[in-house]
Amino acid sequence: MLTSRRSVHVEWGECDPAGIVFYPRYFAWFDASTAHHFTAAGLPKPDLVARYGVVGFPMVDTRARFLIPSSYGDEVVIETAITRFGRSSFEVEHRLLRGETLAVEGFEKRVLVRRKPDGEGIESCPIPEEVVALFGR
Amino acid sequence: MLTSRRSVHVEWGECDPAGIVFYPRYFAWFDASTAHHFTAAGLPKPDLVARYGVVGFPMVDTRARFLIPSSYGDEVVIETAITRFGRSSFEVEHRLLRGETLAVEGFEKRVLVRRKPDGEGIESCPIPEEVVALFGR
Amino acid sequence: MLTSRRSVHVEWGECDPAGIVFYPRYFAWFDASTAHHFTAAGLPKPDLVARYGVVGFPMVDTRARFLIPSSYGDEVVIETAITRFGRSSFEVEHRLLRGETLAVEGFEKRVLVRRKPDGEGIESCPIPEEVVALFGR
Amino acid sequence: MLTSRRSVHVEWGECDPAGIVFYPRYFAWFDASTAHHFTAAGLPKPDLVARYGVVGFPMVDTRARFLIPSSYGDEVVIETAITRFGRSSFEVEHRLLRGETLAVEGFEKRVLVRRKPDGEGIESCPIPEEVVALFGR
Repeated sequence: MLTSRRSVHVEWGECDPAGIVFYPRYFAWFDASTAHHFTAAGLPKPDLVARYGVVGFPMVDTRARFLIPSSYGDEVVIETAITRFGRSSFEVEHRLLRGETLAVEGFEKRVLVRRKPDGEGIESCPIPEEVVALFGR
Repeated sequence: MLTSRRSVHVEWGECDPAGIVFYPRYFAWFDASTAHHFTAAGLPKPDLVARYGVVGFPMVDTRARFLIPSSYGDEVVIETAITRFGRSSFEVEHRLLRGETLAVEGFEKRVLVRRKPDGEGIESCPIPEEVVALFGR
Repeated sequence: MLTSRRSVHVEWGECDPAGIVFYPRYFAWFDASTAHHFTAAGLPKPDLVARYGVVGFPMVDTRARFLIPSSYGDEVVIETAITRFGRSSFEVEHRLLRGETLAVEGFEKRVLVRRKPDGEGIESCPIPEEVVALFGR
Repeated sequence: MLTSRRSVHVEWGECDPAGIVFYPRYFAWFDASTAHHFTAAGLPKPDLVARYGVVGFPMVDTRARFLIPSSYGDEVVIETAITRFGRSSFEVEHRLLRGETLAVEGFEKRVLVRRKPDGEGIESCPIPEEVVALFGR
């Protein structure tokens, strides 16, 4: 199973009056980490869209657990893996680390979607086998 | 059980290149809705802090389910209720509606915290009975 | 000259560790105020786009002066006016007030753009007389 | 005169329905670049605060000119320099580049502030000579 990592520098404007990261920012970081994860697997999202005629993989369910806070100037690392592929959905886990310490856990369920044949709206679609294969077992 | 409501106008800068609300924004709205909920109960967060010597109620776990997207110019309504009080934690549910349709559900678990007696760091503390009472049964 | 007003409640997550509004948020508010200003003039941006076949009015130059800070819980008012129309550009001024006190001034220069005849990219286009007329003299 | 550089990867959630960076994000990036510039000079903002007893350098006036837009996935570079030191104020310029092309110019005027002797509020204070010296001539 492919695990990708990227580091994030906590900026002043991402922290709140309590001096800690305003938690919606973690979701923005995790979203960027999922995009980065596809790039790490060799299939940047724009390529996925172009090659398979899909629209994207919108979020249907996401959750985060906050264990310890982070503050301005911290350098944190986000580890990302896809933990499960369904027919058209997949699940992502993020582990945000301060040093060796797990600070935030993130969970995502996303669905691959394409435009409906009649052009109106979107519908879920099967995840190609070769896409699944890119992320290992 | 007290339920509060507020409406949110979806702004251009809150939507992504797919034309829909970038989902971390929902968490920012829900955070503001929880603050608004305390105000609706007659205890704005600054009063809570001043009256009970607490620091706040940081998030420990949050989740959202996305059923239908919203776009620039939409006027949505967020309904908020506290569904459970523990000794020092409480759970909040948000229902974001487009017209009559449930578009997003949000769940929060927060903990009331005070400064530790030695001044170093924070610790959870019991939620005063009279605070619980403000939100009905 | 039409002046529109809207109020903004300062949220916790818009403030920084110094306890004051993180200044990029003012630009986001001003952007929403310009959209609101067109709505107040009877021509919401989606109608402008549909009726005149334009793409929008992207920002080319913007500035803000910060006189006094605002904090979580403040209720501020933003007054907006278009102070000058050129052939294809227009200038907007925003005055953010805390009570009677001017707290922030914002200035924008925007240009009306349409898609190029060959469909590649955008180009500035004349502002229709009847659009100018909506904003008074 | 010291010039520092950092690169920024444009994320999906920083772009608007027109597919381009929502312009308040540039101001957030520039704010982070100014902080980074002090770090590049050997004086991270927390050290500045600790060593000289100041509170920070709030923005008093900022402006940006937008020449060409950037989009999701772009890798841009921000070049930052302090172009002028006054007694207690200083001016910063940012040049955001896409490849060799200047895409956005940012200007800032900031003021060094300390807490007033009576502890109530803040006041401007002289910028120490040795701080100025760190940024060259």
